[in-house]
Amino acid sequence: MSRLDSFIRRLEAQRRMLDWAAAAIEGRDGLVLELGLGNGRTYDHLRETLPGRAIHVFERDVTPNPASMPPVDRLVEGDMAQTLPAFAARHGRCAALIHVDVTTGVPARDAVLFAWLPQHVVALAAPDALVISGWAIEHALLETLALADGVPDGRYFAYRRRDRD
Amino acid sequence: MSRLDSFIRRLEAQRRMLDWAAAAIEGRDGLVLELGLGNGRTYDHLRETLPGRAIHVFERDVTPNPASMPPVDRLVEGDMAQTLPAFAARHGRCAALIHVDVTTGVPARDAVLFAWLPQHVVALAAPDALVISGWAIEHALLETLALADGVPDGRYFAYRRRDRD
Repeated sequence: MSRLDSFIRRLEAQRRMLDWAAAAIEGRDGLVLELGLGNGRTYDHLRETLPGRAIHVFERDVTPNPASMPPVDRLVEGDMAQTLPAFAARHGRCAALIHVDVTTGVPARDAVLFAWLPQHVVALAAPDALVISGWAIEHALLETLALADGVPDGRYFAYRRRDRD
Repeated sequence: MSRLDSFIRRLEAQRRMLDWAAAAIEGRDGLVLELGLGNGRTYDHLRETLPGRAIHVFERDVTPNPASMPPVDRLVEGDMAQTLPAFAARHGRCAALIHVDVTTGVPARDAVLFAWLPQHVVALAAPDALVISGWAIEHALLETLALADGVPDGRYFAYRRRDRD
């Protein structure tokens, strides 16, 4: 399998997980948080799939395709190690869905480099909120979920925030 | 259709065209030229699909994923406006397949910004060589071909080099 093949599979899995998560939070209150904007493709997919839902995007280096620039009041620029706890301090456990879309491109490295991230995800996730991620997030308050149909184990990750600390 | 959807469709079309072109040049002599390395995914796909075929890669800023770094004697670093004619001067019409994989990300802009490219492609393509591209290349010596099955018109482009100047 070439790297092109595996990239296509990963994007398809990601899209399937986004669609699955969007359907799962229907009727539930809460924000959607996109951690990592990048080119803006998954942000674009989320806002198309969830019209009317407030989607806040966190990014250090904001350089998306211009077609996918979030509105200024929904974009939190800066280092997430600082911006996520600041957002949690203001808004509390506000999120129905958190998509962890920051990556070094090497999943095994992500869990190490972003070791500070899971605690902030947990602090932002409402009771029973969904957390989906391209790499495995470990935290006692995140319960692993089965993936969307057709997404093989290990290609994406999904969690439910337990309902109390 | 979100930008994620359209990105996946474009990658699938690209893969289909690469596979189609690889099958089409089977048994024919000639190099494969990859114009633009980028992350290296399509290069990786070509070398997996065409084992044993010499694939030369042209790139100005060589920053692929390390897994997709071409061997040093198959990598031509520098501005293609210079490196392509220099390669043609040494090797002549050497290529059985040329994949034009340089892009600004905006196909309509590519034909303008890379207006110098088609003449070099024509100078490198052997008689009846295939040229495939993510954007439309116009040159009197390039005859438009029907695309691979399942690839809609306009999503990719394919040409045959006419057999004489």
